[in-house]
Amino acid sequence: MARKIIIGIMGPGRSAPPSVKKLAFEIGRLVAAEGWIVLTGGVNQGVMDMACRGAKRSGGTTIGIISRPTVKISSSVDIPIMTDMGRARNNINAMTSDAIVVCGMGGGTASEVAFAIQAKKPVVFIAAEKLTIKFFKRLEGKYIHAVKTPSAGIKLLRKIIVK
Amino acid sequence: MARKIIIGIMGPGRSAPPSVKKLAFEIGRLVAAEGWIVLTGGVNQGVMDMACRGAKRSGGTTIGIISRPTVKISSSVDIPIMTDMGRARNNINAMTSDAIVVCGMGGGTASEVAFAIQAKKPVVFIAAEKLTIKFFKRLEGKYIHAVKTPSAGIKLLRKIIVK
Amino acid sequence: MARKIIIGIMGPGRSAPPSVKKLAFEIGRLVAAEGWIVLTGGVNQGVMDMACRGAKRSGGTTIGIISRPTVKISSSVDIPIMTDMGRARNNINAMTSDAIVVCGMGGGTASEVAFAIQAKKPVVFIAAEKLTIKFFKRLEGKYIHAVKTPSAGIKLLRKIIVK
Amino acid sequence: MARKIIIGIMGPGRSAPPSVKKLAFEIGRLVAAEGWIVLTGGVNQGVMDMACRGAKRSGGTTIGIISRPTVKISSSVDIPIMTDMGRARNNINAMTSDAIVVCGMGGGTASEVAFAIQAKKPVVFIAAEKLTIKFFKRLEGKYIHAVKTPSAGIKLLRKIIVK
Repeated sequence: MARKIIIGIMGPGRSAPPSVKKLAFEIGRLVAAEGWIVLTGGVNQGVMDMACRGAKRSGGTTIGIISRPTVKISSSVDIPIMTDMGRARNNINAMTSDAIVVCGMGGGTASEVAFAIQAKKPVVFIAAEKLTIKFFKRLEGKYIHAVKTPSAGIKLLRKIIVK
Repeated sequence: MARKIIIGIMGPGRSAPPSVKKLAFEIGRLVAAEGWIVLTGGVNQGVMDMACRGAKRSGGTTIGIISRPTVKISSSVDIPIMTDMGRARNNINAMTSDAIVVCGMGGGTASEVAFAIQAKKPVVFIAAEKLTIKFFKRLEGKYIHAVKTPSAGIKLLRKIIVK
Repeated sequence: MARKIIIGIMGPGRSAPPSVKKLAFEIGRLVAAEGWIVLTGGVNQGVMDMACRGAKRSGGTTIGIISRPTVKISSSVDIPIMTDMGRARNNINAMTSDAIVVCGMGGGTASEVAFAIQAKKPVVFIAAEKLTIKFFKRLEGKYIHAVKTPSAGIKLLRKIIVK
Repeated sequence: MARKIIIGIMGPGRSAPPSVKKLAFEIGRLVAAEGWIVLTGGVNQGVMDMACRGAKRSGGTTIGIISRPTVKISSSVDIPIMTDMGRARNNINAMTSDAIVVCGMGGGTASEVAFAIQAKKPVVFIAAEKLTIKFFKRLEGKYIHAVKTPSAGIKLLRKIIVK
């Protein structure tokens, strides 16, 4: 195994609606099919779980950045990193990823996008609300990208990631 | 000195425009005049510096949650807490404050609001853009308040803070 | 309140024996009597609690660097900093203090001494076991001091702290 | 790739003497040969670098828990986790590992052993000084093991790790 590109897939846990979870599975599957590692917050729920499941479907490797020892970890996480630092671990998600993909939105996800922008990492929103895109573009437009589908997200990532 | 209410005053550093810095000074001054402690990210620039200066003007106490040992600390910070954890310290800002007041907006500030919402802390925006208010209200409206002036902010804080 | 010297008082919580708790109270009392701030891990037990109680006895100010929101905080902590980062907060204890004083020993205390040495902060052991002193002196003798009583500790601190 | 055992290999960076670096390479090589992942602090020096190099020699996978974006990362690290939290990342090293192996000693290493003990993780010292073993056994003997050679370390790890 040589150094590989790491794509963070960010989005809500428990509160993720079925449509968002479907997107997360699909983007996880496609990212892993590119030979890239999938990184999430590692919880056994919502976007985190589904993105890891998708990645395993195409034989990929998954990293979970775990907030607490008491968290239920997705069974599709290969490498759980035990940070024990609560929500502050969201900065590790952003710093460790070469780019992040966002499905859905919530408080944790918003902090991850904010950290990614500050770390100058590309952020690709999939099927996001206009309000969300507008808010983050106003913050720092240079790193914000918006697409409608997972496959469009992958095409974009291929272009913007140089390692 | 008994346990006191701690109000986080959040906003951009270097990039803060003069109008926002003026608001920060004024809200810092008023918060300290209530006998509350002012907490900021502690940098010697922008909202962080001005809020601490305002607090000292009315004889208050100021805490700076410092991201790195190499940061230039505002000379108006009484108690610098040296976290050495970079932007992840923004979660400490939110967790330690009984409420946060927001002047201006940037990547760091957005992460602090996101963390405050998750920690169920009241967030009071002063003279914020409609887009910002709308975005965070959509995330979790219950904790988001918006006022136009520092004095309106103080009146609101008096009502919502119970310790 | 101008910027003040901060002395970290480190030692075990629940497992601290009565003799160690007595030392912690006394050193807390004496540190505060110098006009210095007392910083501890903030838990309502053992050395952390007693050092804060001692500091309040002489009218001092106390900071607690709290590991988790669920921790029972000493009622003698004036300013609780809520890190939510578990044991990793021990690095904040070391980084924030101008020097640390050590009463008793345990896993957490050992990590704090190790961090203090790396941060080039003076470490003053009070009535420590020879084995402990010997181990840390071997690691980095330059920062390690050992005294038998709290009053000898204060005399030493007066000499080595320059701010 | 299914969930695998993760062994942290801890020891000094720049200051590691040649004999300790040789041990680190050998233990890295043997740990990876068992099919276990090697985790280190990821720096391109000393025990961290040599343990990762050893692991790659037997075709293993390596994780580096990186303290800062400015650190020079070992070219033998497959998965760099960018924590940006300085020395506090030592707690992540301990929490993420199923057991830790220690070669040499220094301030950072001492903090990692202290955290491992608190997290109830087995600690295996290779060719350590008697003083070191004695100090940590006094702290919490239950988790401390000492062997003379890397191969004895591997035999011991096989026995004590249950996943």
